[in-house]
Amino acid sequence: MAAYEQMSNEELLTLKQDLEARFQEVKRKGYKLDMSRGKPSAAQLDLAMKMMDVLNSETDLKCKEGIDCRNYGVLDGIKEAKELLADMTEVPAENIIIFGNSSLNIMFDTISRCMTHGVLGSTPWCKLDKVKFLCPVPGYDRHFAITEYFGIEMINVPMTVEGPDMDMVERLVREDESVKGIWCVPKYSNPQGITYSDETVRRFARLQPAAPDFRIFWDNAYGIHHLYEDKQDNLIEILMECERAGNPDMVFKFCSTSKVSFPGSGVAAIAASKANLAEIKRYMTIQTIGHDKLNQLRHVRFFKDIHGMVEHMKKHADILRPKFEAVLQGLETELGGLEIGSWIKPRGGYFISFDAMEGCAKAIVAKAKEAGLVMTDAGATYPYGKDPKDSNIRIAPSYPTQEELSIATDIFVLSVKLVSIDKILADRRA
Amino acid sequence: MAAYEQMSNEELLTLKQDLEARFQEVKRKGYKLDMSRGKPSAAQLDLAMKMMDVLNSETDLKCKEGIDCRNYGVLDGIKEAKELLADMTEVPAENIIIFGNSSLNIMFDTISRCMTHGVLGSTPWCKLDKVKFLCPVPGYDRHFAITEYFGIEMINVPMTVEGPDMDMVERLVREDESVKGIWCVPKYSNPQGITYSDETVRRFARLQPAAPDFRIFWDNAYGIHHLYEDKQDNLIEILMECERAGNPDMVFKFCSTSKVSFPGSGVAAIAASKANLAEIKRYMTIQTIGHDKLNQLRHVRFFKDIHGMVEHMKKHADILRPKFEAVLQGLETELGGLEIGSWIKPRGGYFISFDAMEGCAKAIVAKAKEAGLVMTDAGATYPYGKDPKDSNIRIAPSYPTQEELSIATDIFVLSVKLVSIDKILADRRA
Repeated sequence: MAAYEQMSNEELLTLKQDLEARFQEVKRKGYKLDMSRGKPSAAQLDLAMKMMDVLNSETDLKCKEGIDCRNYGVLDGIKEAKELLADMTEVPAENIIIFGNSSLNIMFDTISRCMTHGVLGSTPWCKLDKVKFLCPVPGYDRHFAITEYFGIEMINVPMTVEGPDMDMVERLVREDESVKGIWCVPKYSNPQGITYSDETVRRFARLQPAAPDFRIFWDNAYGIHHLYEDKQDNLIEILMECERAGNPDMVFKFCSTSKVSFPGSGVAAIAASKANLAEIKRYMTIQTIGHDKLNQLRHVRFFKDIHGMVEHMKKHADILRPKFEAVLQGLETELGGLEIGSWIKPRGGYFISFDAMEGCAKAIVAKAKEAGLVMTDAGATYPYGKDPKDSNIRIAPSYPTQEELSIATDIFVLSVKLVSIDKILADRRA
Repeated sequence: MAAYEQMSNEELLTLKQDLEARFQEVKRKGYKLDMSRGKPSAAQLDLAMKMMDVLNSETDLKCKEGIDCRNYGVLDGIKEAKELLADMTEVPAENIIIFGNSSLNIMFDTISRCMTHGVLGSTPWCKLDKVKFLCPVPGYDRHFAITEYFGIEMINVPMTVEGPDMDMVERLVREDESVKGIWCVPKYSNPQGITYSDETVRRFARLQPAAPDFRIFWDNAYGIHHLYEDKQDNLIEILMECERAGNPDMVFKFCSTSKVSFPGSGVAAIAASKANLAEIKRYMTIQTIGHDKLNQLRHVRFFKDIHGMVEHMKKHADILRPKFEAVLQGLETELGGLEIGSWIKPRGGYFISFDAMEGCAKAIVAKAKEAGLVMTDAGATYPYGKDPKDSNIRIAPSYPTQEELSIATDIFVLSVKLVSIDKILADRRA
């Protein structure tokens, strides 16, 4: 098809009439569809149902080290859980601490601790006039919500196909001592599905921050969440890379099994240098009696080891892949060549990122909602919910069924087309 | 027996020789005994083993409200878990939020939030020059560790048989705006097993703090942890009492099932006014994806309701009661009338509090350790680990077997006697 911009006003108005009629037809069906959240489907959860059986009243509930997992004790995770999650996130087991059910919770607590106690002896951030964080955009709204909650000023850093704009990151980190951290989803990034290139990771490891308490918040949320067996992105392991570069303490790495076993009933972990872990343990000793060891044991007994986990992730991929492909196919068929939007085809993760014409994202999301399709709020992928170009929309294909997804994609592309025509016509009038 | 103070130096020295011989004899056995922690025994944990069976791969994992507990969603706890823990802590279900596995973690997070964000709009505590907490003593070392960690100045308030010295509490709270909170274990207190009297609770509810952001941290850790069916302490419910007194927002109440089901794999909760809960939820939305709903469901399906829980606690009592009685009997038989120590006979909770002669606690704990008995560090029941009289020792009878407990009690009383004789002789020399 011809690009919309190449069409005359009359052609566009005729097209609009036709599209609007189709939109009204869909709207009349009263659908209730949701592509807003990176939430596994019921079929994916069913994959781990047998995990509910591995511990029962007849089971030996002692972990490898002989500790009764039913009782108090073990602050930083049972040995076998450390081994499993260390393998999952590609670090030595001695560099990991197991937490509760939510890696977001660890990130929040980490920032909170930086605020009240600083980092390895630095001034507590709450005592500073200004604390800034770099935020690769588009990015994960819940990251931005944490830094916003603590009054940390967020600076947008544009994403490229290789990861964040590293020229900008290097400069800001080097020149501004109030820049204390950066949020990263380095593999199959949220929402674009971009994996940081080798060079990007190496430049991260070699950063020369003005602030000694600068930390990279490396949220490896989708480390093993591939869509394809034969086409997988590869990410250099950052902890080791930082150590090699002489910056061993510069990174906190996070992971969880939320999208491996059960969201909300998984196991989360932080990986970091020994100095960082020692500080975290001093804090944990005060904060908690220790996390749920029975759930750690349940995970290890179910997955056995990283190979078991990798096999399990293939089953997730088998469910997710056709969903991603359906949406991507719909975008390609309906929007290809129209020059009213662009998107990236991810090889893993949970999202497809769509960039509409400038100034159209909010209107598209609103239009889709009219026909019963809930999308992530436009702007959510930017700090403070403000997408300066009002362009980015996050598509989450995981939760709806295949059938729902096909209708949802129809509604979405119709909304994109209608809003884009209005935009083009308005621009021409102006 | 005669009080040691009434005996002559010669009598004491003869007695000491005999006791020392017995001590050496016990020491030679090379025991490894532990009365240091309020940790349930394996027999107590066995009581809840069937909880491991209530959820399995055939179970419907939807909660009452129809939500799939395996997936994301539900920030503040599933309805039936709220009902169960609300009944457990005697508040309406609308006044409770379910958290993770550790009430200590909720208390820590609450203080942390007060530091960074204040309370209901007040100045964040980290921005104030001075923040003080009142600490009824003897008390719980982990409470004191939290306030110490955040640099909050702790003020000792002596316990009486009715609870904290309320004249002192009222005065300090009224006169000093920097007093922002007080730690309370109001029922079967740690370590004394004292339950606050009706009058004490009412005076708490009627406090007139200078600081509008003053909060009572009401850790109802042992609310249903009775030792006897026929002799139970009764505690007035503080939330309702505060509301009646026109101070609805003045209290945070905490509870958990750590010593009901499994320590570390239980469910914890906070109860508070609606205004306080609204603020907590705003914070939780940022902090976490929500807590483990499957474990909440597991608890509810196992206990069914508060009646099931109460029945379950009777089984705990049947195991704990003889242990408490063995220690108390040992103290009475061996130390009764000697006037070298005093103790309170608790009706519930996890501890017996022993007050040695002034200046003797550290030496007694060290002496016991010589013979292989680990006690809680002397001083631990006071802020900063400093018992000004070096007198209080916390005895935790729950974890050892009945047989171990009898030997442990022997070692303890021998240690008390030997250290006390030395102390009396030294005082006479001085």
